[in-house]
Amino acid sequence: MGKKIKLDRIVKAPGHKLAKELQTFFREHGIFVVNLIGSPGSGKTSLLEALAPLLGNRAAVIEGDLATDEDARRLNKLGLRSFQINTVDACHLDPGMIRDALQNMQLDGVELLFIENVGNLVCPASFNIGEDMKVAVVSVTEGDDKPAKYPTAIEVSSAMVVTKIDLLPYLKCDVERMKRDARAHRPDIQCFIVSAQTGEGVREYLAWMEEQAEGALQHQE
Amino acid sequence: MGKKIKLDRIVKAPGHKLAKELQTFFREHGIFVVNLIGSPGSGKTSLLEALAPLLGNRAAVIEGDLATDEDARRLNKLGLRSFQINTVDACHLDPGMIRDALQNMQLDGVELLFIENVGNLVCPASFNIGEDMKVAVVSVTEGDDKPAKYPTAIEVSSAMVVTKIDLLPYLKCDVERMKRDARAHRPDIQCFIVSAQTGEGVREYLAWMEEQAEGALQHQE
Repeated sequence: MGKKIKLDRIVKAPGHKLAKELQTFFREHGIFVVNLIGSPGSGKTSLLEALAPLLGNRAAVIEGDLATDEDARRLNKLGLRSFQINTVDACHLDPGMIRDALQNMQLDGVELLFIENVGNLVCPASFNIGEDMKVAVVSVTEGDDKPAKYPTAIEVSSAMVVTKIDLLPYLKCDVERMKRDARAHRPDIQCFIVSAQTGEGVREYLAWMEEQAEGALQHQE
Repeated sequence: MGKKIKLDRIVKAPGHKLAKELQTFFREHGIFVVNLIGSPGSGKTSLLEALAPLLGNRAAVIEGDLATDEDARRLNKLGLRSFQINTVDACHLDPGMIRDALQNMQLDGVELLFIENVGNLVCPASFNIGEDMKVAVVSVTEGDDKPAKYPTAIEVSSAMVVTKIDLLPYLKCDVERMKRDARAHRPDIQCFIVSAQTGEGVREYLAWMEEQAEGALQHQE
């Protein structure tokens, strides 16, 4: 940490090498990058809101949405520095968008960068945007069949965060089935069961995330 | 109605003309086609389940999912004839998939065909698969910002069905905002507020749908 952030190499990188260059850039600067993927309204931004007071200045967020800057504004209000990308019609973020965002961000002191992808449980699963890991966010309100029905998103994700569990009393949703189906597609997937409303499970998820970040950075030294 | 279903022309149609040929085919056979688009877990299948007892034999469903045939099985169990397409990695249905489904379906007596697209509020908005209209399904559990944040899905849809309103007491969700934002992107959009659990709003939606179907078929005569 503490190295001066230099963007030259990623700015000049050719398109097809950009994801790899971004990865090198993040590693060199001690930044662990999490690509959050999930359906519209699965609770990605709410999860980040719940994490905000625990993260302080060492984290930053890139927000991907077709339209509006609502999500970045929600997080900036909580002191989590966030930059909004609008993809207009594009169904996922690509490495070029991340490069452009980085040129507009202040990354000093950042150790954890969350990239909230466009709300879409399909397309973002197929693209690397320089991240260390993907994390799938699936809400209980979407139904317990979603890990089985969107296997690619599960296969590419190191963790699944099951959100909105405060609503479980009002739903027919079997969280055990979600975990079982997720593990059938990716046996080593970590499962976290959280509520951004009550805070349940949020610290556990963050603790694991930080452990992963430390592991990755030590590996590099 | 009552014409014998002949698939020859759509089977032979070249790829780029297929959507148009499908439209002609459906019109000639008196079948009104609704392309349901919405996020994973927005309640598209549950809406069809609620419609099933009101539809009987005059309706059929094509179900699009990356994986599993759960949805078609759910509907067939309720007597609504349904055919499942698995798109594997594809993020939306295309006309070729609809053609293939039709070759495997029994369409005699069908006046209304619902095509439930892959759960995805982005990509399916950009593709015509032979439908008369698109209908966007958005649940209150996804949050009231979704019509503003997914404008393309709204712009291409003749109606927006807001689902899961039985859960409103447990959420912060302003349905009026959803309607307002939807109308900002498409002033003539019809809004229906439904609960598949309680049945609220389901008959109103069906009545409108049938009116549209009648209008389209009369127009053709």
